[in-house]
Amino acid sequence: MTFIEALQQIVPPHQFYDRQALSQTAVSYWESEPTTARCKVCPSSTEQVSQILKLCHHYGQAVVTQGGLTGCVQGAKATAEEVILSLEKLNQIEHIDTNAGTVTTQAGVILEALQQALAEKQWLYPVDLGARGSCTIGGNIATNAGGINVLRYGMTRDQVLGLEVVMADGTIMNLQNHMLKNNSGYDLKQLFIGSEGTLGVVTKAVLKLSPIQDKHHTALVAANNFAAVIDLLKRAKAELQDSLSAYEVMWGVYYDQQTQPKGHKPILASGYPYYVLLETSHHNAPNADAQFEALLADCYEQKTIVDAAIAHSEQQRRAMWDIRENFEPITGHHEIFTYDISLPIGNMAQYIPSLTQTLKSNAPQAKLYTFGHIADGNLHLFINPGQTQAQRSEFDDWVYQPLAALSGAISAEHGIGTEKMAALAHYCDPAALALMKTLKQTMDPKGILNPARVLCPNVTD
Amino acid sequence: MTFIEALQQIVPPHQFYDRQALSQTAVSYWESEPTTARCKVCPSSTEQVSQILKLCHHYGQAVVTQGGLTGCVQGAKATAEEVILSLEKLNQIEHIDTNAGTVTTQAGVILEALQQALAEKQWLYPVDLGARGSCTIGGNIATNAGGINVLRYGMTRDQVLGLEVVMADGTIMNLQNHMLKNNSGYDLKQLFIGSEGTLGVVTKAVLKLSPIQDKHHTALVAANNFAAVIDLLKRAKAELQDSLSAYEVMWGVYYDQQTQPKGHKPILASGYPYYVLLETSHHNAPNADAQFEALLADCYEQKTIVDAAIAHSEQQRRAMWDIRENFEPITGHHEIFTYDISLPIGNMAQYIPSLTQTLKSNAPQAKLYTFGHIADGNLHLFINPGQTQAQRSEFDDWVYQPLAALSGAISAEHGIGTEKMAALAHYCDPAALALMKTLKQTMDPKGILNPARVLCPNVTD
Repeated sequence: MTFIEALQQIVPPHQFYDRQALSQTAVSYWESEPTTARCKVCPSSTEQVSQILKLCHHYGQAVVTQGGLTGCVQGAKATAEEVILSLEKLNQIEHIDTNAGTVTTQAGVILEALQQALAEKQWLYPVDLGARGSCTIGGNIATNAGGINVLRYGMTRDQVLGLEVVMADGTIMNLQNHMLKNNSGYDLKQLFIGSEGTLGVVTKAVLKLSPIQDKHHTALVAANNFAAVIDLLKRAKAELQDSLSAYEVMWGVYYDQQTQPKGHKPILASGYPYYVLLETSHHNAPNADAQFEALLADCYEQKTIVDAAIAHSEQQRRAMWDIRENFEPITGHHEIFTYDISLPIGNMAQYIPSLTQTLKSNAPQAKLYTFGHIADGNLHLFINPGQTQAQRSEFDDWVYQPLAALSGAISAEHGIGTEKMAALAHYCDPAALALMKTLKQTMDPKGILNPARVLCPNVTD
Repeated sequence: MTFIEALQQIVPPHQFYDRQALSQTAVSYWESEPTTARCKVCPSSTEQVSQILKLCHHYGQAVVTQGGLTGCVQGAKATAEEVILSLEKLNQIEHIDTNAGTVTTQAGVILEALQQALAEKQWLYPVDLGARGSCTIGGNIATNAGGINVLRYGMTRDQVLGLEVVMADGTIMNLQNHMLKNNSGYDLKQLFIGSEGTLGVVTKAVLKLSPIQDKHHTALVAANNFAAVIDLLKRAKAELQDSLSAYEVMWGVYYDQQTQPKGHKPILASGYPYYVLLETSHHNAPNADAQFEALLADCYEQKTIVDAAIAHSEQQRRAMWDIRENFEPITGHHEIFTYDISLPIGNMAQYIPSLTQTLKSNAPQAKLYTFGHIADGNLHLFINPGQTQAQRSEFDDWVYQPLAALSGAISAEHGIGTEKMAALAHYCDPAALALMKTLKQTMDPKGILNPARVLCPNVTD
């Protein structure tokens, strides 16, 4: 029996796609080119995942685990000789514990489906991101997804209480903790969160829920300098407390381009150096309106902010978020290099002007558009390289090289995948990188799980 | 040069204590017997920690890392042939970033000292526990300390942004992230949080801060059944939102014994099946008083609670907490077996009556006192065994054995140390236990870091 025949013994025919069938499907959410892989198998139970990995381990067959294919760093794209392990059939929400505020769910459940099922029971699963309609809980966990509510609720890691994981050799590991407190030995689940499927395959998760928050206050404000942006954040945190759920900053050049004549409606005048979209979320909090408006009025009086608009309808709120989120006016028809870095907020005022200067000297026609979740220390950079001799790798160096001295990081929320593997190898603390490789070697000795992702393949192996 | 002579080359004389000097000091916070160890060394820099471990690694010398010695599971007590590595001289708060809300601190800083330094700058480090005046940040991290604010803020793990760690062979690993978001490779710091010093020595930490919360509303209420206790929790979470910072439940037998004539003043009448101490913390929240009182009034009207007292002064608040925290009326002059377990709140109503029945059948004179942070799934049990033939190990079995079927855990916040090592070996998922051992073997191949703690020594080695 060949390997493929053995694989076909594990799942029924409708859960198996051969090379030919795969070539009819797109490679990812972002790209329409055909999928190339040896085959794709879609287990419908943890036991099937275990059998598949046991077989692949035996044959030393490389496996790429796929969720919703919305990742940004080319982590889930298969090569022609890899087997795709899709968790799309592991799509059951198994149990909602309305007493404890937890949900037990299979890995292939779509984020938005989970959000909606919980909202019906008056609970909130607070991780939220643009890809909510396609991305899966398993993918969110494997990549430690961030998104727009991190300021208040933390990353995906902060929601995970327990996991079920299948190891490279097919061993099923039960780490299904349900409690906020469990110090019974090493917290092994942490190894599988954010390691992008390279150490094990997450098949099930127990997630912590939060009380529902279905009301928002949203404002778009302008500031004349970065110190004022920080001051506003500090006041908003202190006065709006936990209700502050988003604090998104757009540098002037970003806002101006987004609100150009063919772009979004300019809610505030263009030309200010900084724009902040801030938002609270709550549930019947008394006086929340008055408190939000009083904060902004006082900041305007004190000249911390120089212009402001408050959303008075969901439509107005949506228009503000559109300027922040829907960046076609910038990405439109240009080549764009995108970056997702993090650094302490106090160092941003130094970093961005310095990067702007570097680009001016080396690639004078390049344009830098900066925005991000600055309360999380997270900046997204869009660089339109313009007409230049400079290579993408040079831009990478200009962006990444100054970060170390500023306590920054090369990936805030998108992860490493294949796209940032070289940068990780270059900028990571050497002892830390060595330990990462040791863990990979120890937990996946044949290197079959998402090989050549996150960590560069070891050429001496 | 002998090993001891080499060690004395690394630190100045006042940072070294020989066997004789050590015999003058108590072994822990809880026990007054003299310390027995080969020697104690107190490095004042990460570089010294590195040199000490390099030397110990070379000699295969076992090392026990010590913080404030307040642990409850005999994890930091040295044997006669171990070297004590005390981090008491690593006691500097290095940097408070008031923009980002982070603090960089050495591991030997006392929790209360850190809390106070931050309060002066209007920031809160939210981890809090009874041992605050003695326990250290390094110990908190090594044990993933929980405490009284977990419901709102999570455990110590949830506060840690970055670490500096010295590995078993002396390698210094820089994992000093400062941001909420950093997905640059595996999140290695998680390995050192809660692994009780068995995988590396934490020398420095970057911690996340929260806005200061210096006002409280506190109430003690009584309920007639456990369903009402859960209902009150759900309503308090939904209506008081994030401000709910403690929800401590005492079973009637605990409350009654605590408020016996020679014990604490009984704020509510004795005889109810359940007592709940609930508390909010906030900072100038408008209407917080009214909201808190309205919730309780409505719950009383609906008969969810059957009696209630609200603290109107710090003294009254303290009196309520004393009933919960100062358990001399129970522990007084009796032998007490203490347990720290966790299980989903919905399963507690089944677990405690069942355990009570088991004790009644097997050790009829034993008395069970139950209390805990039930919103965290955490129960503390005090068992006075009374006159019985039963051994401690039998009580352990009665407490631990039923937990697996109820999704429970043998240690909620105290960790494993040596005390629960056998229970972990018995009740842990076998695949998980095997991976824990593999990690220990991989990261500390000579087994010099806190040996024979957490994981049973492998007799086949």
